[in-house]
Parts: sequence; C-alpha cells; structure tokens
Amino acid sequence: GVLGSGDFARSLAVRLVCSGFKVVVGSRNPKRKASLFPAAAEVTFQAEAVKKVDVIFVAIFREHYSTLCDLADVLAGKILVDVSNNTEINHHKESNAEYLASLFPACTVVKGVNVVSAWTLQSGARDGNKQVLICSNNQEAKHTVAEIAQVMGFTPVDMGCMSSAREIENIPLRLLPAWKIPVFLALGLFLCFFTYNLIRQVIHPYIREQKNKLYKIPIEVVNTTLPCVSYVMLSLVYLPGVLAACSQLYYGTKYRRFPDWLDQWLLHRKQIGLLSFFCAALHAVYSLCLPMRRSHRYLLIETAVKQAVEKKMTIWVEEEVWRMEIYISVGIIALGLLSLLAITSLPSIANSLNWREFSFIQ
Amino acid sequence: GVLGSGDFARSLAVRLVCSGFKVVVGSRNPKRKASLFPAAAEVTFQAEAVKKVDVIFVAIFREHYSTLCDLADVLAGKILVDVSNNTEINHHKESNAEYLASLFPACTVVKGVNVVSAWTLQSGARDGNKQVLICSNNQEAKHTVAEIAQVMGFTPVDMGCMSSAREIENIPLRLLPAWKIPVFLALGLFLCFFTYNLIRQVIHPYIREQKNKLYKIPIEVVNTTLPCVSYVMLSLVYLPGVLAACSQLYYGTKYRRFPDWLDQWLLHRKQIGLLSFFCAALHAVYSLCLPMRRSHRYLLIETAVKQAVEKKMTIWVEEEVWRMEIYISVGIIALGLLSLLAITSLPSIANSLNWREFSFIQ
Amino acid sequence: GVLGSGDFARSLAVRLVCSGFKVVVGSRNPKRKASLFPAAAEVTFQAEAVKKVDVIFVAIFREHYSTLCDLADVLAGKILVDVSNNTEINHHKESNAEYLASLFPACTVVKGVNVVSAWTLQSGARDGNKQVLICSNNQEAKHTVAEIAQVMGFTPVDMGCMSSAREIENIPLRLLPAWKIPVFLALGLFLCFFTYNLIRQVIHPYIREQKNKLYKIPIEVVNTTLPCVSYVMLSLVYLPGVLAACSQLYYGTKYRRFPDWLDQWLLHRKQIGLLSFFCAALHAVYSLCLPMRRSHRYLLIETAVKQAVEKKMTIWVEEEVWRMEIYISVGIIALGLLSLLAITSLPSIANSLNWREFSFIQ
Repeated sequence: GVLGSGDFARSLAVRLVCSGFKVVVGSRNPKRKASLFPAAAEVTFQAEAVKKVDVIFVAIFREHYSTLCDLADVLAGKILVDVSNNTEINHHKESNAEYLASLFPACTVVKGVNVVSAWTLQSGARDGNKQVLICSNNQEAKHTVAEIAQVMGFTPVDMGCMSSAREIENIPLRLLPAWKIPVFLALGLFLCFFTYNLIRQVIHPYIREQKNKLYKIPIEVVNTTLPCVSYVMLSLVYLPGVLAACSQLYYGTKYRRFPDWLDQWLLHRKQIGLLSFFCAALHAVYSLCLPMRRSHRYLLIETAVKQAVEKKMTIWVEEEVWRMEIYISVGIIALGLLSLLAITSLPSIANSLNWREFSFIQ
Repeated sequence: GVLGSGDFARSLAVRLVCSGFKVVVGSRNPKRKASLFPAAAEVTFQAEAVKKVDVIFVAIFREHYSTLCDLADVLAGKILVDVSNNTEINHHKESNAEYLASLFPACTVVKGVNVVSAWTLQSGARDGNKQVLICSNNQEAKHTVAEIAQVMGFTPVDMGCMSSAREIENIPLRLLPAWKIPVFLALGLFLCFFTYNLIRQVIHPYIREQKNKLYKIPIEVVNTTLPCVSYVMLSLVYLPGVLAACSQLYYGTKYRRFPDWLDQWLLHRKQIGLLSFFCAALHAVYSLCLPMRRSHRYLLIETAVKQAVEKKMTIWVEEEVWRMEIYISVGIIALGLLSLLAITSLPSIANSLNWREFSFIQ
Repeated sequence: GVLGSGDFARSLAVRLVCSGFKVVVGSRNPKRKASLFPAAAEVTFQAEAVKKVDVIFVAIFREHYSTLCDLADVLAGKILVDVSNNTEINHHKESNAEYLASLFPACTVVKGVNVVSAWTLQSGARDGNKQVLICSNNQEAKHTVAEIAQVMGFTPVDMGCMSSAREIENIPLRLLPAWKIPVFLALGLFLCFFTYNLIRQVIHPYIREQKNKLYKIPIEVVNTTLPCVSYVMLSLVYLPGVLAACSQLYYGTKYRRFPDWLDQWLLHRKQIGLLSFFCAALHAVYSLCLPMRRSHRYLLIETAVKQAVEKKMTIWVEEEVWRMEIYISVGIIALGLLSLLAITSLPSIANSLNWREFSFIQ
C-alpha cells in the first residue's frame, strides 16, 4: 500500500507495479488522482486502502502525518514504512520515523527507501548507488521491507535500530560535506602560490627587462604552483597527528578529548591527502607535457642555431644534468608512494586491510 | 549430503570434506563411483544417503530431477540446495530451483552455490569473486546454507526470496552483456576515423607530393583518431538524456515509458562513458610519447641545421606557441575531470555517495 | 557491561558511553580504577556489575579468563563478548573465544570487536576499515552484538559460527602476508638486472673508452631495469598455471592435490601480477620523462651543431624511426591491457564479475 499522491508516491507505485507487486494507493480524492497512477494500481480512499494491505509506504510530508490519526484503528498492527526526507539537516528534534512511531504506537515503523530519488524509483536502479538503508526496532518488519527493496532491484542495507533513522534521513541532504573545507583550502593555496609565481616568472621579467613571457601562464606558472600546493597539503595531513601527540604528552593522558578544531582537522586528513595527491598527479602530467610544446622546440632550435653560428661544440654542464636527473627520479618515486596511499583510500581496498596493515602503509 | 557424481558433485564433496563437514554422497551405483570421491566422504545408495543428512546438495541436471521422485518420502522435511545452471539464458519457463520446489513440495528448496565453478570449489576461493548468491522462501534454511558457504570460505549474499532464482541462474552465463554494444560502437568509430586520418595524413601527401609518411601510421594516425572517438562517445553519453527530456516535454508527463531503443541507450551510458575515458587516457599517453620518438628528434635537428646554415636566428611564432599552450592545458584539465567521472564509477566509491552527490559530480 | 580495566576496556567504555549506552564496568578494585573511566560509566565490583547487565565485554587477557570462574553463577544466561587478541598467529590450540565458551557453558559467547584498535574505539571509526567481524553459534546473541557495533559507528560483518573465531583472532596479527614473497622476489630481480645494466651501460664504457656516463644511473639504468623485472614477473604469473596443467595431465586426474610449493605459487599470482604492473607503469613514467632531461637537450643541441658545422642536411634513418614507433605503440597497448588486469583486481570490481567474465579478462 502507498499513502499519498505526490511525485514520490507515484514513482513508488510505478516501481512496485513493475516489480510484480499488487499495489493499493490510498488517497483523499481517489477519483481525481487515479489517472496519475499506473493502471495496474488500485486507487481508493485511504481507510479502504489501508485495510487491504500489510505494508504501507507513507509518502506524505511530516507536517501532514497528524492527518492520518483518524486511521489509527485500521493501521494498528500494520507495517508503516517512513520514506520521508527533510529539507535541512537535523531539522526536527526527533527523526520523522520516530515521530511517526510516536503517533501510531500500535504500528511497526520502518525507516527506508528515502535515500533513492523519485527518478531512480521510476526508472529502476541503473547506475550510482543501489543501496537502500533500512532501520527499525522490529527485526521481522525490517526483513519484510528489505525483501521488497530487493525485488525492486535495490540492495537493502541493515542499519540497525530506530536510533539510526535520523542519520538515514540526513544522508540525502549531504553534499560532500567532508570535502568543502579541503577544497576551499586547496583553492586558496593555489591562488596564493599562483599570484607569487605569476609575479616572479611573468610580471618581474616584463618590468625589468621588457621581456614578453605571457605564454608561460597556462602551463609553466600553473606547473610551478601545483607542487607547492601539494607539499603544503601533504604537511597539513601529518601536522595534526603531531599536534595530537603533543597535546596527549602535555596532558599526560590519551583519554582527554581534543579541542574541536583539532578534531575537525583530524577528520579531514583523508580528503586533504587525496587533494594533495591530485595536485601531485596534475604536476606530473604538466611536467611530462613540457617537451611537447612549440615553445620548447623553438627555444631548443634557437640555442642550437646560436651555438652553430658561434661554432661552440659543447654546452654540457655536468651539474645541471645531475640536478635534473635527481629531481625527476625523486619525483617519480614520490608519486609512486603517494599512489599507494591513494589506492588504499579506496573503500574496497581499505576494507580488505586490517588496522596493522593500514597503519603500516600510511 | 550430495546427490550426483559429476564433476561439480565431486568438487563440492572435496571442498566440504576439506572444510570439516561430514559428507554423505548418494549415488545409484555407489560401488563404482566411490573411488571418484575423497576417502573421507561416505558413498552409498541415494535413499540411504538422504536419510542420514539434513542438507542435501542436488548436483544433478534439471532433466534428471524427476528421477528423484522415488525419494520424495525420505526427502520430506529436508533442505534441498539447487546448485544447477542452465546452458542458455532464460532457457526454461521457470527457474530450475522453482521446478525442483514444485516436484518436492514437502522439502525446503534453497538456490545457491551455482555461481562458483567446480574448479573454484575444489581449490578454494583464491581470487576473483568469492560471493555465493543464495535465495529461498525459507529464512532458516537460507541461513543454514549461508553458514555452510561461509565455512567453505565464500561470502554468502542474501538475494531474497525464490523469485530471484532465475536471476541467480542466469548470472554464470553472462559475459559482460552491457559492454558488447559500446565496444563494437567504439571499434566502428575508430575504424571510420582511422581510415579518414590515414587518407589525410599518409595517402594524400604520398599521391600529391610523393612524400613517404608511412612511419606516421602506428603513432600519429592513431593519436589523431583517439580523441575523435572519445569526443563522439562522450556526446553519446549526454545525448540520450536530452532526448529523454524532450520526449517528456513533448508528452507532458514523466510517467510514460521511453521507447525501447532509448531505454537501452540510457542503460549503456556508463559503459560508453568509460570507453570514452579509456580513449582519452590513451590519447594522453600517445601524445606524451611524441617527443620521445626518433622521428621527432631527426626533424628537430634537421630544422636546426637548416636554420643555422641559412643564419636565421629566430623562428619564434607567437600564435603557434599560444595555440599549443592552450591546447595542452585544456587537454589536461579535461582529462582530470574525466578521471573524476571514471573514479566515481567504481562500485565501492559509487556506494559511498548519495544521489545528490552522484548527480553533482556527473 | 565491561570486565577489565586495561587500555582496551577503557577505550571501549568511552566509545559505548559516547554512543549513548549505559555502561557498567566490573573491576576488582573499583575505587582505584574509577578515575580511569569516563564519569558517565558506573565502576563497581565484578559480581555486582555483571548482575546489572545482559551483554558483557570481556576485556581481559586469555590467561586470566579462569579468574572469572567464581562469577559463573551470575554470568549464566548472559552474552559474553570475547574481544581478546593473541600475540602470535595460531598461538593456542583452540581460539580464545572457544576457550571462554568451554569455561562458561551456561553463557552465550560471541567473538567480535577485536579487529579494531583501542585508538579507533576511542576516537571513533574515521578512515580505514570500519568492519567489525562477529561470529557466534547463537543467532540472537550475534545479532545483539551486531546492533551494538552498528550504533558505535562500525559495520558489523557476520562471519558465521564459532569455528570462524580462530580466523577472526588471527586477522589483527596479519601484516600483508601474501605480499612478502612477491615483494622480496621483485627486489631480488631488480638488484640482479640493475647490476647487469650498471656494468653494461656505465662501468664498461668507462673502462673501455674512459667515458663518464655516471649521470645515467638514476634514470636510464633504472629505466632499462624495470621492464626486465616486469617481464620476468609476468611470466611467473602464467608459469604455475602451465605447470599445474602438466601435473594434471601427468597424473591423469584433477582431484590430486598439487605439491605445496606449486600451491603457494598459485596463491601468490595476483600479488606477483600487480607488482609486474607496478614496474611496467613506473617504466612508462620514466620513459616519458626522458625527453624532459637536460642531458637529452644537450645531446640534441650538440648533434645539431655538429651537423650544421659539417653542413650535413639530413640524418634521417628510416629503420631507426620505424623501430622506435613500433616499440612505443606496442608498449602503450601492453600497458593498456595490463591496466585492465589491474583494475579487475580491485575487490569491488572483482565482486561484480562472474567467473566466466573474470577468466575471459584474465
């Protein structure tokens, strides 16, 4: 059974019908709304619909939950599935599902199916996340809803008891929260170093020697900026661990909570590290592109022509050669090690390592 | 208990014995077959074997299920595990497991262990997929079989009720079905563009100016072909979404099914996108290899010699320099963005993103 | 309830309190130990603590399990969670959990939470592996502990019945065991080929022609060594399969166990293959860096100057050009194919392939 006639209710009905379920839709105005639902779904009055089914998806806004109170008697003993979402994180004091459970103590409330969008429901799970998180205090009801989700083509994930409902309701509102600070940090650092390198490599030679080096902006200036950002970010990954150790030594205990800023910093280390790796990888690609450029070729030919005209047969500078060879070989090894770190950050690899192995690699 | 004496039955018996189970094998001719099974397994007549055990693996072809009907009385109340596979997708109207269940209504039938090969069973799960998909209408029986699979070293995955049996039976027959069309599409596009570039870069200069440019075929012609394929594939990823939106606007509803070809197209977007990324990455590697080649070095030296002999001191063309710098820097940024798309296609990353985050990145 | 007052017990109590549980700690000397635990946890005598709770985490060394025997009466019917680890793999004949179960036959013993470190427990699961492996012969008890782990922020994984306890206890002691032999093999091969290439490319020209080529060591010598290591490793991946097939043909049966060394070799193929891919990828990066070096630029200019002074207009050698073009294009294709192999080794990709697809790609 589905209560409600909004977008989500309709998509849910479509999906359930497609998956071979017998669907009864409860509406306040069944005649007007019937045309919105697939022909195979029976649309009737709420009280009548509820009587015919055991599992009821409540696709109604939290604000209208109280309108169902008249149905309390018919609903008793049935499984209510709360599929609602909020518009803000931690909007209400208690989760929608817990609120629903408090209104209908005679029903078994299950939270679930809210993490998928109406669009996904309607068209079937195609790509992206196929997981449907489910929680309830009643094992059997949770199991029933999990089986329905399975038949609908999703992967049910047991999230334990009702206290997880708030977390499940917050998930669809999340937009990469752990990435916001690290991304802005990286952008800020990039801007600073870019300005410095622009002044040093382009503006200064122009003012001093009237040399036009503007062509260096898109590649060379960016390429000297990226490793600076990468280095600073990498040091920001390891610094909070040192600070935490110092704080523990100072207070003489491991069991004191860290200050909030340090805690937040510790939590963002993985993202900062991945952005550091991303900058290092971009730096590698930019560097590899250097000899491909026209400007590199022109400078090379000009030097050769100058040498030939002046009949200088050798320009070999041993020190320059060694510096470059060592730069490059150390750079490759560093990138190789960072790649290992990045690979072990993949969830499926991390899950196959134990803590000893993980710390060893890190 | 194991019924049958084929390759799968023997491997299953080996594995069960190795995992510490007491195994009884039921055969029609126990004396002749006993030598095929490990010594620790007891081989006896079918009816006798069935009496001694609670869980029976039916390692017999579907065609011979009916030969077990004589055992219906002894089998009553036992758990039958259907491990059979078909030779064609959707070969029979009902799945083998459902057919077995209809023959023995007094037994509990569980579908499972069919997705692993006889070889894997015998040698233990080493690499590749260790998952064993299990489904049944009886929770407890499913649980028992799951525990057995666990002890055997596999990861049991609950696939819900018996209606999933057909899906589970089809899995071992699948051979990357979603990749067939995209791969042929990519090959077709590659062939077209390769021919065009071959004519333009090699055949035309040969006919017109008698210049031998055959050396360009393995790298330069391939390298100008790859980005064309990549671009067309990328546009084919986003086109069906636009068409779907147009169709929805035209019919004024989201709830109408798309025509079949559009539906298929929408389903293949991920694979087309990954192939587009693969072509773009190959293009990047080919381009980076360009200055490494002998031909590049020879052309460079020849130009320098010509310039030196003619005493032309400068060959700097500002426009050419800028064009190249911008080409390369835009190329690197595009590849970086495509990499992000490709990484979020990894199942373990996609499962850690919600729909809002997934759409944001896409 | 928590029994014990060590590091793990304290971290466990902190985490349980933070997750909203009412925690009672049982200690032999509650007055002295109370200050070590968070204020919200009640610290009392063992017998009293045990009476108040249903689930008891036994955070005591295996050696001291017998000291709990006085509590056998109060413990009867409760769930005991064994969180202990050993200091050596397979240290004792039976697992700690099975030993605990034998001491307290009236209790339900669950093995779990041992795979997380005290540090993770205290600070919450942040990165790395969030899985908590749980096993028990009692379904309900296992479920209760799983729900507690869920609320604590971990992902419980059902490992089946008590016989898995030994495996779970061995996990935290593992340190990439499957990688040891392949890594030493790769290092050994690298050393051999590096010495050979060093003699050939640096020492020999120095002795014969007094040419100082030392600058070649960091990049060029390493770069000619890496593909040799990669090739040998790749052949070592496919060789044991051939040997296994020969052994099967020789003995005329698939059901004979392979000798131990072959078995071990077959088990390490994935790791050897990934190291082979790692060497190949490093070789690609080193090769791409070659034209970026000063030494490459100097040699190029010197050649050009020599040609210009001698007025030789052409240095094009068709054979050299073709050799290089074919080397590079075959190298790129080989790296592309190896990348596919490496990607299908990611656990989350491997789990989405069936055995037919996996063998097809391999």
